[in-house]
Amino acid sequence: MIKPRTPPGVMELLPRDQIAFQRMLDTIRLTFERFGFLPVETPVFELSDVLLTKSGGETERQVYFVQSTGALNKSVESGGGDGLPELALRFDLTVPLARYVAEHERDLAFPFRRYQMQRVYRGERAQRGRFREFYQCDIDVIGKDALSPRHDAEIPAVIAAVFDALDIGEFTIWLNHRKLLRGFFEGQGIDGDRQLAVLRELDKLDKRGEDAVRATLVGEGFGLAADVADRLLAFSRVRSTGHDDALAKLDALGAGTPLFEEGREELRALLGRLKAMGVPASRYAINLSIARGLDYYTGMVYETTLDAYPQIGSICSGGRYDNLASHYTRSKLPGVGISIGLTRLFFQLRDAGLVAGADSSVDALVTLLDDAGLDRALALSQQLRAAGLNVETQLEPRKLAKQLQYADRAGIRFVVIRGEDEAARGAVAVKDLRRGEQFEVAEAELAQRLLDERKS
Amino acid sequence: MIKPRTPPGVMELLPRDQIAFQRMLDTIRLTFERFGFLPVETPVFELSDVLLTKSGGETERQVYFVQSTGALNKSVESGGGDGLPELALRFDLTVPLARYVAEHERDLAFPFRRYQMQRVYRGERAQRGRFREFYQCDIDVIGKDALSPRHDAEIPAVIAAVFDALDIGEFTIWLNHRKLLRGFFEGQGIDGDRQLAVLRELDKLDKRGEDAVRATLVGEGFGLAADVADRLLAFSRVRSTGHDDALAKLDALGAGTPLFEEGREELRALLGRLKAMGVPASRYAINLSIARGLDYYTGMVYETTLDAYPQIGSICSGGRYDNLASHYTRSKLPGVGISIGLTRLFFQLRDAGLVAGADSSVDALVTLLDDAGLDRALALSQQLRAAGLNVETQLEPRKLAKQLQYADRAGIRFVVIRGEDEAARGAVAVKDLRRGEQFEVAEAELAQRLLDERKS
Repeated sequence: MIKPRTPPGVMELLPRDQIAFQRMLDTIRLTFERFGFLPVETPVFELSDVLLTKSGGETERQVYFVQSTGALNKSVESGGGDGLPELALRFDLTVPLARYVAEHERDLAFPFRRYQMQRVYRGERAQRGRFREFYQCDIDVIGKDALSPRHDAEIPAVIAAVFDALDIGEFTIWLNHRKLLRGFFEGQGIDGDRQLAVLRELDKLDKRGEDAVRATLVGEGFGLAADVADRLLAFSRVRSTGHDDALAKLDALGAGTPLFEEGREELRALLGRLKAMGVPASRYAINLSIARGLDYYTGMVYETTLDAYPQIGSICSGGRYDNLASHYTRSKLPGVGISIGLTRLFFQLRDAGLVAGADSSVDALVTLLDDAGLDRALALSQQLRAAGLNVETQLEPRKLAKQLQYADRAGIRFVVIRGEDEAARGAVAVKDLRRGEQFEVAEAELAQRLLDERKS
Repeated sequence: MIKPRTPPGVMELLPRDQIAFQRMLDTIRLTFERFGFLPVETPVFELSDVLLTKSGGETERQVYFVQSTGALNKSVESGGGDGLPELALRFDLTVPLARYVAEHERDLAFPFRRYQMQRVYRGERAQRGRFREFYQCDIDVIGKDALSPRHDAEIPAVIAAVFDALDIGEFTIWLNHRKLLRGFFEGQGIDGDRQLAVLRELDKLDKRGEDAVRATLVGEGFGLAADVADRLLAFSRVRSTGHDDALAKLDALGAGTPLFEEGREELRALLGRLKAMGVPASRYAINLSIARGLDYYTGMVYETTLDAYPQIGSICSGGRYDNLASHYTRSKLPGVGISIGLTRLFFQLRDAGLVAGADSSVDALVTLLDDAGLDRALALSQQLRAAGLNVETQLEPRKLAKQLQYADRAGIRFVVIRGEDEAARGAVAVKDLRRGEQFEVAEAELAQRLLDERKS
């Protein structure tokens, strides 16, 4: 006898939680499709040499390799160590997207707008809230040779629509621009090579606090003058409240280098587009501390936080990059995208009591009181299904109390009972467990009645 | 520069094919939910000792093992060979179901009705039409201690509803019963041990033909008398056409052993239930040659074929088994289930020209004729989205002909054009690329008009 158990670091759900999770996936997918993004799915594994083009880095050390029994035997026989296994599990959806776009370049229309919602794999240290398998829900717009910054403006509109639809509370999309940041650094006499290092340090403000970051910036490694460090920190503190304030805060930054002005102009234009799209001003704000650690962002960067749960951190992040697939193609493929880590988000929302096991996906349980009623119960169930209701049929007679208890525990809202009295009248009784009410309805009208009740 | 490519044996789709595939997945899921099945997802990998409880077998040799970079390094340093890697990719959805039900036994209500639609992994030989990664779409009903044969009757109703909804042509669900088969063998003097071997031989009738199978049965290994072999083959030839004929064919088999009579009675009862559920009689038939190679089936067995494409083979198979999870729990968990191998099915349907790249998931392209129109285009797009339409906005002005060509290639049906003339009237022009028609409509009525047109 083997103890049934999952590996550490995965999230496996009981049905009612799975239904809640599935509804979030469906909502996200629907919203991505509303904005004209097309579905892509890629294989869970890629060829190792294709996946691991970038040298070293934390990500590579966390990769899961895959080999068939045959390959495993061969490797054992030869003493192992003859290079990496042939296959590896994807660790994000960006590298597979780069490979996909480069591989299918001639068959795709650009700008290519794709969404992808699949699980990714990382050999994280086992720890509560850290997952080795988790869903990412990504959108990206990929241009060929060039991609107008106008596409950057659609992204916050998508984020706003997604989290409005998910209905998990008020949220803010934080906006910043790498060119604004780097232009500002430039203006402070920090040259190109050191800009990324300063950026990475400023990205730690949340974790380390201002004093520690300031100490590092004026310390030996960076050697910034005290007034420069102060100006960097003051810059990082800039946050807007409302649309007009965002524009005002940008104006108040004063004149800067050409790079700085370019970034500011793109941010201003983006704010205009958001207004044109009717995104509520309460949903977005300038936040000049947002850096995003990843080096490959080159323009707009986005983070999103739940207003009531800032400690959860960013629930949707991304930005603009210059070239998606330089390892796979000579074509220049600039893009902009965001990612939602849904497994982690679901875990934290559940922890915070913001999502609970959903009602069942089953709308109605058709009960069975005695064997003689079986064929009627089956026919009635099929009638309800044909009308678009999800129905479970009780196939063996049990005490009605047991059947009601089962429906209640399973989160099934309607219980259909065809007792003798009702049957004589061509009717059925329905218990609405959500409202704690009971009503009688003619069998022929049952489906429509349940559909109406379900809406209310 | 690395050549971008997928590993052999996977099916990766371009967007329009992916949309067609996604619609099939959605249809199957919807239908599974109609019948009250609950969603389950399990991790892609299981602990190796949990996954590989059954000794030996082809399946085990095809398993993909998974190890993190860290584990890989350790194994190389220690010269490899210190047992199997810790993790392995699931090769079907049945073993994970067994593990899931045994692990969560106390939290589940029985009979437990679950559906699961995920990819599974097998290290198959590389060959056209053979996949190393493919979707399975499974339903199972699991009882605790016992499960009424009535559940077996719902399964063909689900299969019929799924393939009706998929709309890929006429199909037949073939029914047989292991007890009828084994009871018949018993009656022919073939004892228990040899019954499975005979079963496996008869399962090869399709591939080897009657003459070859007959030769084997009367040959040295089996040593059956010629008349016994003839009766077995005659029995295998029994197929019904229509509901009454199925009952008549069962009657015509004559009396048999108690096991035989039990199987016949269950088949008769199942036919009655199918009629009660209104499953059209053209959708199901008795076929006494259906054996299903797997040893663990003990009652009803099902296969499904497309009437016009018998060469595709069974597109949905399954059956009744006595005990799902004997490796993981002492509880007896009988069940009944079926599986659709959707990746292979999609591949073959596409080969046969039965599915083609779908229309885009994008309903409408809002065009852009000049920069001045951008904000109006964005606002109009949002208005359409709010009404439930999937919309892509052209963000950079291009020649209208280019925008129309793009929509046409992408399979987008409606192209919304806000020219100067129309704008002066508060209207827009719409090209319906499917119908090759153009119409003008007031901006305020555009969304409703497109929704109406989309239905027609």
